[in-house]
Amino acid sequence: MQFSVSSRLSYEVRAQTVFVLNVEAAALRNQKILTEQLDLSPGVALDRYVLDGGTRLVRAVVEPGTFEVAYTATVELDMHDADPAQVAETPIAQMPLEVMPFLNPSRYCQSDMLGRFAQRQFGGLLPGHPRVTAICNWIYEQVDYQSGTSDSQTSAYDTMVQRAGVCRDFAHLGIAFCRALGIPARFASAYAWQLDPPDFHAVFECYLDGAWYIFDPTRKAAIQGLVRIGVGRDAADAAFATIHGDAQMTAMSVSIEPVAEDGAVPDTEPTVRAVGIA
Amino acid sequence: MQFSVSSRLSYEVRAQTVFVLNVEAAALRNQKILTEQLDLSPGVALDRYVLDGGTRLVRAVVEPGTFEVAYTATVELDMHDADPAQVAETPIAQMPLEVMPFLNPSRYCQSDMLGRFAQRQFGGLLPGHPRVTAICNWIYEQVDYQSGTSDSQTSAYDTMVQRAGVCRDFAHLGIAFCRALGIPARFASAYAWQLDPPDFHAVFECYLDGAWYIFDPTRKAAIQGLVRIGVGRDAADAAFATIHGDAQMTAMSVSIEPVAEDGAVPDTEPTVRAVGIA
Amino acid sequence: MQFSVSSRLSYEVRAQTVFVLNVEAAALRNQKILTEQLDLSPGVALDRYVLDGGTRLVRAVVEPGTFEVAYTATVELDMHDADPAQVAETPIAQMPLEVMPFLNPSRYCQSDMLGRFAQRQFGGLLPGHPRVTAICNWIYEQVDYQSGTSDSQTSAYDTMVQRAGVCRDFAHLGIAFCRALGIPARFASAYAWQLDPPDFHAVFECYLDGAWYIFDPTRKAAIQGLVRIGVGRDAADAAFATIHGDAQMTAMSVSIEPVAEDGAVPDTEPTVRAVGIA
Amino acid sequence: MQFSVSSRLSYEVRAQTVFVLNVEAAALRNQKILTEQLDLSPGVALDRYVLDGGTRLVRAVVEPGTFEVAYTATVELDMHDADPAQVAETPIAQMPLEVMPFLNPSRYCQSDMLGRFAQRQFGGLLPGHPRVTAICNWIYEQVDYQSGTSDSQTSAYDTMVQRAGVCRDFAHLGIAFCRALGIPARFASAYAWQLDPPDFHAVFECYLDGAWYIFDPTRKAAIQGLVRIGVGRDAADAAFATIHGDAQMTAMSVSIEPVAEDGAVPDTEPTVRAVGIA
Repeated sequence: MQFSVSSRLSYEVRAQTVFVLNVEAAALRNQKILTEQLDLSPGVALDRYVLDGGTRLVRAVVEPGTFEVAYTATVELDMHDADPAQVAETPIAQMPLEVMPFLNPSRYCQSDMLGRFAQRQFGGLLPGHPRVTAICNWIYEQVDYQSGTSDSQTSAYDTMVQRAGVCRDFAHLGIAFCRALGIPARFASAYAWQLDPPDFHAVFECYLDGAWYIFDPTRKAAIQGLVRIGVGRDAADAAFATIHGDAQMTAMSVSIEPVAEDGAVPDTEPTVRAVGIA
Repeated sequence: MQFSVSSRLSYEVRAQTVFVLNVEAAALRNQKILTEQLDLSPGVALDRYVLDGGTRLVRAVVEPGTFEVAYTATVELDMHDADPAQVAETPIAQMPLEVMPFLNPSRYCQSDMLGRFAQRQFGGLLPGHPRVTAICNWIYEQVDYQSGTSDSQTSAYDTMVQRAGVCRDFAHLGIAFCRALGIPARFASAYAWQLDPPDFHAVFECYLDGAWYIFDPTRKAAIQGLVRIGVGRDAADAAFATIHGDAQMTAMSVSIEPVAEDGAVPDTEPTVRAVGIA
Repeated sequence: MQFSVSSRLSYEVRAQTVFVLNVEAAALRNQKILTEQLDLSPGVALDRYVLDGGTRLVRAVVEPGTFEVAYTATVELDMHDADPAQVAETPIAQMPLEVMPFLNPSRYCQSDMLGRFAQRQFGGLLPGHPRVTAICNWIYEQVDYQSGTSDSQTSAYDTMVQRAGVCRDFAHLGIAFCRALGIPARFASAYAWQLDPPDFHAVFECYLDGAWYIFDPTRKAAIQGLVRIGVGRDAADAAFATIHGDAQMTAMSVSIEPVAEDGAVPDTEPTVRAVGIA
Repeated sequence: MQFSVSSRLSYEVRAQTVFVLNVEAAALRNQKILTEQLDLSPGVALDRYVLDGGTRLVRAVVEPGTFEVAYTATVELDMHDADPAQVAETPIAQMPLEVMPFLNPSRYCQSDMLGRFAQRQFGGLLPGHPRVTAICNWIYEQVDYQSGTSDSQTSAYDTMVQRAGVCRDFAHLGIAFCRALGIPARFASAYAWQLDPPDFHAVFECYLDGAWYIFDPTRKAAIQGLVRIGVGRDAADAAFATIHGDAQMTAMSVSIEPVAEDGAVPDTEPTVRAVGIA
């Protein structure tokens, strides 16, 4: 399934500023970038780097004035529908060792402190994809999705008590529960089809049965229409723009649409099927 | 129903030390102290004060050496059994204003942060004594009672995430939920009949229907055998001994037994009946 | 020295609402209320209560519509200038026992967690009023006064790390340090002369040498022009309005001016002198 | 300079257990492993993985009974002494992009919350190695090194308030300050020459002037005698043993000694020189 994505960021730069941008689709096995274009205006030299997990960073040094970032791409997602009941958890003994750091607690996902609750609530469930779905359902039912109830310092620990947040908080709580149960989990920012209003979205991925599977406890977007951008431990690793200097964002727009392939109308369904993305 | 209570504290005092002790039964309307004796050894002058809520403080300045505190009392608890279904919550509009500070958050009971969960979980229940019982049941079922899982800095916020603690943590969580729902709640330390092993216990009280009702979410003691000692906002107000100086506790024992009244064997039942203690 | 104070609060009430108001000058020994008037519009019956520390609560049940609260008073502050060097700390052994709860940690003042820093930074200073002034100076120098950096959940623990806040945060930090050093301390909301822009202010008081002394680490108001309103453990005890129901504040104004007494121009000085207010 | 290091861990395994061990010297450019041997007893198959930063993980599935891990190695540290005044900070604009994740906050290093203090305290200092040394000196002077004052949940946020901890807390605070100032910083566990009593140690490294420089704010070990083991975001990434199953450690010993090279007696000096370890 193909998607056309775009984002446009405008800044007023008041002093020389270093931007580290992360708006390009991530380099993932199941996410093929067919075409893409990144325009910086004014045009400036840029450095690029692809982090281990596939996150693509761009750095630009920008002089005072107006600065615009425009990104467009066509991305093919090669997601396969699996039968959730067949997607098992990978035993620690067989898990690729490079995946194991995603069991560690991180800034916003204090899995070390949520273990007792996670075990009590989800420990008795059948392991595998349905257990992570149960986690997502619990978050959806127990946490209010409400702007303004959390901020950039809010962590899973806080959300567990305060029971309100936005997509990144939902993702952090899901990640923390999974890690507490021995399931490697990572954060992903994304272009999210059908997210309304359009914005950068946050979801999470679990390593199950040899692949990373995607989950969205907010149920706000189509699970098979998530073009991942930044992939990392948690939101600390996936800011779309990090600004070192003095600049103010003046406008932002984000879009994603499916590319019609021989007239087929894609079918959408929130976080219920097992969607493998390895 | 009458109880014979006693406590004995032993200290090794290494430099002149000020002790503020709170081991005597509180001065409460429904808790009549029939006889009592406080012995300090060596005998030292002491100051006394009764706080607003009935907590009785004793201060002693003690020179280096061995210091022993021995307290014994016979206390009559005038508890009345009410039909829980008849014990309503007092509307804010009719609540005595002096009770309202017990709606405020305190050190260990951050009711301001637990409101959303409390409303979601308990807000739809019929107001009154059964709602507080539902809170106690939830705590009993969701939090592990386990020594060593919490310390003197652990608050209701932490217990809500970590789901383990001891009697004071159970009481703090109950208080926080009640305050969040508009029910005044306070902490009480107590001599607790049938607590095994014997120790100072912690419970909480709610202001309902014109009186303070007692609750013990731990279910570890007989609800009608609680002789209250310190009553306050939370555990910060109810330490049995505060030590300013240099002294080390070397031994402690606590006991409580019902006093046989014409051969009647008292009947015990954990936190299920409405026990009024106004 | 006399002050004329006033406040006016306007609300849009959408459903029957219980207001608990605390805008009247507190009943304190050194704060004589010469004249005062509280007007509620529409006029509604009200209940009154004076808390132990002198805080005066008013409760009103208000029907839907516009609701206005207007308070004016003339208050004489009987503050005496003491020589700070002569204002000692009261030893625990001699402190009135009713003052001792103000040594306990509270919601926003976790003195139990700040003890090591307080001892290290201020423990070696000469005890007494100058030590509390040193605490105020430290706060003034180390914490940025900046709106929007804190919220109603911010505590002294947070401010110690984040180093920014507003008047209530400054007061909470001062209280926490004092309690950690064995100095009873309490929070006070106040009409504050020369505060610019005019607003309700927050300061703190310490029990020293037999009286409560006032301190303002923000240096934003005249220390001798503080008409106290709510006095308590911390901001949790001193909200100017607590709303149970559905009402929205639409306007608020606060003022305080010295009343000319035989032409004398009062002299103002920020938090440097010892100002006793017992 | 060469060191002979060893560690021996003994466990009582009660049910099949997966061990993830990280006791081998890390694969770092300036740390050459001349000889090494890892013995597991009973001998079991093991998986190996080298994480991006050089951390070497070993996984073993162990059946019930006694389990022993013995590691010995000879390691040559190729540290060069630089003139600290010549070791500059790398501007964000020139920093390798792969280093930038070490600017992000992590579980135990909430650099996002410590920025104001870091700027205020260290922001005005001359950038470069001496600034990080100033950070280490501040930590050494302001935080008590004391066992039992912190636990596995203690973070830099807590240590900033509570001012006590052990080596990992010292490292976390140093890392948090550095990241807050725009200096990439990472955590390292180590065999530490002259640490008394011998144990695994924790230090941190900063990316300065094109290389990772090592710092030890505890001053408890010889800065040029640190054989790094686990390198990561913080202590969450550098446990010497992670146990999935049911096993109890029964004994542990750690040692490190310089290997005499032509009779030279190595000279030791705590955290003052710039020691480059790129």
